[in-house]
Amino acid sequence: MNTPEVDILLVDDSQDDLDLALHALRRENLANKIFAVRDGEEALDFIFCRNAFAERSFDNPPRLILLDWKLPKVDGAEVLSQIKGDPRTRTIPIVILTSSREERDLINGYKLGANSFIQKPVDFNQFRDTVKTLGMYWLIVNQPVPCIQNLPTR
Amino acid sequence: MNTPEVDILLVDDSQDDLDLALHALRRENLANKIFAVRDGEEALDFIFCRNAFAERSFDNPPRLILLDWKLPKVDGAEVLSQIKGDPRTRTIPIVILTSSREERDLINGYKLGANSFIQKPVDFNQFRDTVKTLGMYWLIVNQPVPCIQNLPTR
Repeated sequence: MNTPEVDILLVDDSQDDLDLALHALRRENLANKIFAVRDGEEALDFIFCRNAFAERSFDNPPRLILLDWKLPKVDGAEVLSQIKGDPRTRTIPIVILTSSREERDLINGYKLGANSFIQKPVDFNQFRDTVKTLGMYWLIVNQPVPCIQNLPTR
Repeated sequence: MNTPEVDILLVDDSQDDLDLALHALRRENLANKIFAVRDGEEALDFIFCRNAFAERSFDNPPRLILLDWKLPKVDGAEVLSQIKGDPRTRTIPIVILTSSREERDLINGYKLGANSFIQKPVDFNQFRDTVKTLGMYWLIVNQPVPCIQNLPTR
């Protein structure tokens, strides 16, 4: 099957933020295999291997999902909830990366099972440093789950 | 109440590993308020504010728990399970930091809700770099939940 490996799935409707994140990750040689989608529906199709991504396999999940909170079609909370609610996908680390400063979103993100929650810095250099640190942490230091299919349902 | 703030709760029965982690965190000025316990029972007493820690408050959780997997009295899996199973404590980030190389432990850690899983590097310099990156990530980049008591039970 044609299921190329992906290190990071970036989910963001802002082209500027996508470009910034891609620039920072590539500059640090942290991740070459990045796939970007612009709304929550496309993110769920990608993760659940359906529609345009029907040829993908659950055996080959991204090592990290960087998820914006306010998204078109299906919002970040629903994307998070569906991925963390399914035993085939719940171990994929999800980091919320959002410009939201609302405490309610932060609490809700953790409640729904986000692995981590990061507020996008407004300053360009801080944004780059943040993406660099999170890339180093999740792609180099963190140990990913070996294979999603090994996980028994509960 | 006498509940001093704690940035990191370190849970490890190896004095050498505790010393190394403390050294790395202090060297980078990442965390001054670190509390270390040597077994799983003491870790649970600390987090659930009981016995020797009865004067602590749930309002004042550590920003991060670094949890060894193989521990005396109560093992890491049970500590993780109890903290992630209680709405008062489930949003505290827990990073498993272990010398275990067993895939079963890794899968089990993620299944039980660990935010992240890190294998302790054997090399001293790599261990220091790992602790530095995880400290930067969880104490600087990550946004902690504002107050555990705000979370409704589900």
